Amino acid sequence: MTFDRDEIRSCMLFNGVTDSETEDFLKRHPCKIRRFDKGDCVITREELSENIGVVLEGTLGIYSDSYYGGHAMVGIGGRDYLFGFIAMFYNHAHSITSLYSRGCRVAYFSVPSGQTPVDFISTTSPGIISNIFDALTTHIRHDFDHIYYIGTDSVSVKLTRYLLYQREEQNQNFVELGMNRTELSNFLSVYRTSLSREIGRMVKENIIEPVGKDKIRILDLQALIDIEQTSYK
Amino acid sequence: MTFDRDEIRSCMLFNGVTDSETEDFLKRHPCKIRRFDKGDCVITREELSENIGVVLEGTLGIYSDSYYGGHAMVGIGGRDYLFGFIAMFYNHAHSITSLYSRGCRVAYFSVPSGQTPVDFISTTSPGIISNIFDALTTHIRHDFDHIYYIGTDSVSVKLTRYLLYQREEQNQNFVELGMNRTELSNFLSVYRTSLSREIGRMVKENIIEPVGKDKIRILDLQALIDIEQTSYK
Repeated sequence: MTFDRDEIRSCMLFNGVTDSETEDFLKRHPCKIRRFDKGDCVITREELSENIGVVLEGTLGIYSDSYYGGHAMVGIGGRDYLFGFIAMFYNHAHSITSLYSRGCRVAYFSVPSGQTPVDFISTTSPGIISNIFDALTTHIRHDFDHIYYIGTDSVSVKLTRYLLYQREEQNQNFVELGMNRTELSNFLSVYRTSLSREIGRMVKENIIEPVGKDKIRILDLQALIDIEQTSYK
Repeated sequence: MTFDRDEIRSCMLFNGVTDSETEDFLKRHPCKIRRFDKGDCVITREELSENIGVVLEGTLGIYSDSYYGGHAMVGIGGRDYLFGFIAMFYNHAHSITSLYSRGCRVAYFSVPSGQTPVDFISTTSPGIISNIFDALTTHIRHDFDHIYYIGTDSVSVKLTRYLLYQREEQNQNFVELGMNRTELSNFLSVYRTSLSREIGRMVKENIIEPVGKDKIRILDLQALIDIEQTSYK
C-alpha cells in the first residue's frame, strides 16, 4: 500500500528528525495508513503486539475494559496520539485498553516479531525516541488532569475544572471540546442529563455560552474560579 | 556524598543493564541519596528541571496543584517510582505536580543543565532508556486504572473496582493497600467518613475483612463482582 510521505513526515514521531533517519525508520518499520469510520474498532489488545500507531487526523476514544464486563471511556486521542507502544514491549496485562474510532485516519508502523525494546531503541534514532518520550509524558500529564477533573462528586465542579484547564492549555477563552456532549459526559464520568442540566444552568447565569456543538465560550471567568476554589475536600 | 552502589544497581533503572553501562550512567549523572520524613516535600515543580529521581524505599504522594488553589492527590509512588523525567525535557507547563514524602528514600541523578532529550538519549544505554519507557508506560497503565476506579459517583463501586483490580494485579485475595485509610479516601476521591462507612458495611456483610491498617482480605469475591457488574452507566 502506498502512502503520502509528506503526511507521514508531518506527524509528531518525526518532529526535528532528519530525512535519512525517517527513511531508515520507515524501512525498518513499514507504514500503512488506514481510515476508520465512527464506531470502528481501531485496535484491540491482541493486535497491539504488532504495530505502533499514530493518529493522523480525527479522533479516537480510549476505553478500559474490565475483566468483569465493564467498558468505560478513559480518554480521547486526537492528532498525533501514539498507541501500541505500551502493550508491544511491556507486559502490563492486568488492565485492558481498546481504541474505537470517532472518525480518524491512522498510520501503523509494523515492528518485526520478536524485537525487544532494547533492539527497537538501539535501531531507532534518538530524535524519534525523544518524540515517543514526549508522547508518553504528554499522556501522563493529560491523565493527571483527567484524574483531577473527575476527582469530585459535583458535576458543576467537574465541568468547571475541565473548562479552566482547557482554557489554560488552549490559551483562549474559547474552549474547543474536541468531543460531543455524550463523549464529554463519558469523559467526565457524569450522566448525560446531569451534564446538560449543568451546562443549561451556567448558560442561564451567563457564565458560559455554547458555540456550535463542540465549543464553549467562557463569559465569566471569575464565576468559574469561585466554583473551583470552594471545591476542595 | 557516598552511596551504596548495590542498592543503586538494584533499582529498576538498571534492570538488565551491564555494570559498565551503569558506571557510565553514574559518571554522567552523579547520584545522591536522600531520606525524607512523612510530609516533607520531595520535589516541587521548580526543582524538577535538574534531577531525575527514583524511589528506593517507602512511598510518596503525587499531588496536582491547580492554578486556583487546588491541591489534590492524583497518585502514590512506591519502590522504583521514577519522577522528574517528564518536566525536565518536555514543556507541559499547564498543570503542576508536586511530590510529598510518606516516609521514603530517594536516589537523585543530576542532569547537566542545557542537556536536551536527544543528548540524554544519545548518551544513555538502550537498556536504561527501555527501563525509563517501562516506568512511563506502567505509569500510564496505573493512570487508566485510577480513572476507571473513580469514574463513578458510588463509593461502593469505587472501592469495589479498586479491590478487584488490586486483586488481579497483586494476584492474591489479600490486597495490600500501600496507603492508610485517609490516603485511600483521597486516592478514590471520596470523603474519609464515606469510605469508613462503606468498609464497615462490607465487613458486616462478610464481603471483606481488614487486616491491620493497610491490608484487606477479600472473603466474598462474587459479591464484589456483582457490585462491579451492575455499575455501568
